Amino acid sequence: MKICCFDLEGVFTPEVWINVALRTGIDDLKLTTRDISDYNVLMKRRLGLLNQYGISLKKIQDVIAGMDLLPGAREFLDWVRTETQVIILSDTFEEFGMPFMKKLGYPTLFCHNLEVGDNGMITDYKIRIPDHKRESVVALKKLNYEIIAAGDSYNDTSMLKEAHHGILFRPPQNVSDEFPQFPVATDYGEFKALLSEKLEL
Amino acid sequence: MKICCFDLEGVFTPEVWINVALRTGIDDLKLTTRDISDYNVLMKRRLGLLNQYGISLKKIQDVIAGMDLLPGAREFLDWVRTETQVIILSDTFEEFGMPFMKKLGYPTLFCHNLEVGDNGMITDYKIRIPDHKRESVVALKKLNYEIIAAGDSYNDTSMLKEAHHGILFRPPQNVSDEFPQFPVATDYGEFKALLSEKLEL
Repeated sequence: MKICCFDLEGVFTPEVWINVALRTGIDDLKLTTRDISDYNVLMKRRLGLLNQYGISLKKIQDVIAGMDLLPGAREFLDWVRTETQVIILSDTFEEFGMPFMKKLGYPTLFCHNLEVGDNGMITDYKIRIPDHKRESVVALKKLNYEIIAAGDSYNDTSMLKEAHHGILFRPPQNVSDEFPQFPVATDYGEFKALLSEKLEL
Repeated sequence: MKICCFDLEGVFTPEVWINVALRTGIDDLKLTTRDISDYNVLMKRRLGLLNQYGISLKKIQDVIAGMDLLPGAREFLDWVRTETQVIILSDTFEEFGMPFMKKLGYPTLFCHNLEVGDNGMITDYKIRIPDHKRESVVALKKLNYEIIAAGDSYNDTSMLKEAHHGILFRPPQNVSDEFPQFPVATDYGEFKALLSEKLEL
């Protein structure tokens, strides 16, 4: 039996931090795992900037509430969910992810969560487990699933390598260059075609 | 972080086999894991009866298409999915389960699947892994989740014991007597109250 593990940002939604950067004018918040592959280094930097500029969780949630899904994302995911099972594996936090889950029809989301102080500022983040995308694929393999994983970034590649089938969706050039073993989809039509092949539809 | 693992039949939907028994008049198809705790013994008996009476997969799917969810099931599950993550763990087969998933808004379903012959008769069934409900809870614990599991039958009790929190929903008397350690919900209101407590809402 098959199951799909999909990244969230860059696959179904825009990048949260880039949008927070645009709305706050703090350019350094634009950096993502596409730029800094060590997630912990990246997050410490982000939280430092938020505190430095006084950006609360509420402010970020307001930005997220104003963000649309990528055009066609909901229709694509709706189709996948009629054909097979799906779990969204994201390095986002539940506090950021749930407004997107609502827009996506509440697929199951595995992610992390935040610690927030009494003043509404984000004080820390809790990584549920290190490299949880890959670990989730390992766990699903032990449950005798054949896994099709898709993502766009560096932080997806360990999951793609662990899965039976890996797909890159709109990756930056450096990621597709470094991981030529994974087929690339540049729109949902190509994504659907690749997935149909892996699902033997 | 928390996640809910819910059984399907008896919790959100009526029992498929009981309804097939009623529609076909084959009384022995009424037996469930509530009656025969060894699932493999039960399934071999069911498939033997289907072949004996010439009942195809299509006939069973027609029965399922005519079955409603338990009253209030969709509303309850919709509420849970706004609060936390959910996976449905069922000993049903994908061929039987997907029409119910459509009615429930496509939650993620872990189950088994069937083998069907060219004549449309069910020839065999494939158990993805033995005791998959409990194994799924084990896997999710390794992913650092706190698990709240709920079900109604014998075949749910290994999952309930493995989870951090177990809830029995409308169990038969013999199951609640044998497993007094699990709180019992007799309707979705009580289920919601128990779940809210475990989720610390």
